[in-house]
Amino acid sequence: MTLPEIRLTLPTWIEKFLSEADATYPSDEDKMAFVIALSRRNIDEETGGPFSAAVFDQTTHRLVAPGVNVVVGSQCSAAHAEIVALGMAQQVLGTHDLGAPGLSPHVLVSSTEPCAMCLGAIPWSGIRRLVCGATGEDAESIGMDEGAKPPAWPETLQARGIEVTLSVRREEAAQVLRDYAASGALIYNGRLGGEDENSEGPPPTVSDRK
Amino acid sequence: MTLPEIRLTLPTWIEKFLSEADATYPSDEDKMAFVIALSRRNIDEETGGPFSAAVFDQTTHRLVAPGVNVVVGSQCSAAHAEIVALGMAQQVLGTHDLGAPGLSPHVLVSSTEPCAMCLGAIPWSGIRRLVCGATGEDAESIGMDEGAKPPAWPETLQARGIEVTLSVRREEAAQVLRDYAASGALIYNGRLGGEDENSEGPPPTVSDRK
Repeated sequence: MTLPEIRLTLPTWIEKFLSEADATYPSDEDKMAFVIALSRRNIDEETGGPFSAAVFDQTTHRLVAPGVNVVVGSQCSAAHAEIVALGMAQQVLGTHDLGAPGLSPHVLVSSTEPCAMCLGAIPWSGIRRLVCGATGEDAESIGMDEGAKPPAWPETLQARGIEVTLSVRREEAAQVLRDYAASGALIYNGRLGGEDENSEGPPPTVSDRK
Repeated sequence: MTLPEIRLTLPTWIEKFLSEADATYPSDEDKMAFVIALSRRNIDEETGGPFSAAVFDQTTHRLVAPGVNVVVGSQCSAAHAEIVALGMAQQVLGTHDLGAPGLSPHVLVSSTEPCAMCLGAIPWSGIRRLVCGATGEDAESIGMDEGAKPPAWPETLQARGIEVTLSVRREEAAQVLRDYAASGALIYNGRLGGEDENSEGPPPTVSDRK
């Protein structure tokens, strides 16, 4: 058996995109404008879903690493924009912990509120702050599935010392979602229980051998 | 800016480990015995945390791809065993969807119940069944943090057509966790709100500009 490897790369257009962008983004609105532009470019270039994110240094406001959804192109269902941005920032800084002693605090800015997976990933990443654009409802309104998130999910982060700011440039961010849906592009992972034409046999069960 | 990339690879000892292992694992106990052996080897080799997982074909019972926790070595906080196993299986099969039409159904076998991130990742992966060994409580008892999971988390998977079986070879799996803790190895990501010596300033807030 040859061992596989998982390799997540950013679309090649990002290099030119970054060279044209400002290097620092002082306000939340500045950071979100950059992230929304990234999500729009990702759908225009047809390199992935309408989601983007980026990690910034909270002290210098410099971009540390961008991320876009590369699920289909990377053949990796976990390659959501937030997972990619956090992982890229960790590669840039050479540590799995963006909150490690000696580092500046970092903020994750996401074009849409995180799904259940990305929400769960945030406390492990070491970021100190999350800023979101479009809401989970905006994503669900175009058929995307947010997963089983706790209703008071921002408070679950706050309880872990992570500040949360929602709905920054929400309408601009949501417009990218709507434009993606209107283009007829792939709404993947929209499969829900009971709607799956591939499922056969008895309904699934939960068994516990404790 | 040179674009970073995220590259997750399995420890090199896995190749020999796999060549010595049986290629098919008919029962849940067989599959879990393989996965527990993998987690024990990962701590013996000091290549990561005490967690492992694997994706199997539910029809042929063949191993599709193994995964171990490679968070520290890969400098990627998302590189939990389940994320790695699912991503590796997706590379092997050439699709982000392990439940795609034409594929056999797949099962994810995990040495410990998934944390909040990995739980959230499961519905996006296309697997049809989850089998766990040690419980979340077993992980927490050695200081690991499971994240903000819904209390009835197995039912959230079941509602999406994913069968869940818990506590298969639980004691054997939990013993690996205890042995890891007893070795004095790193319990990372154990940071919780209020316990962080790096936090400064006012408590975090949730703000919503909706």
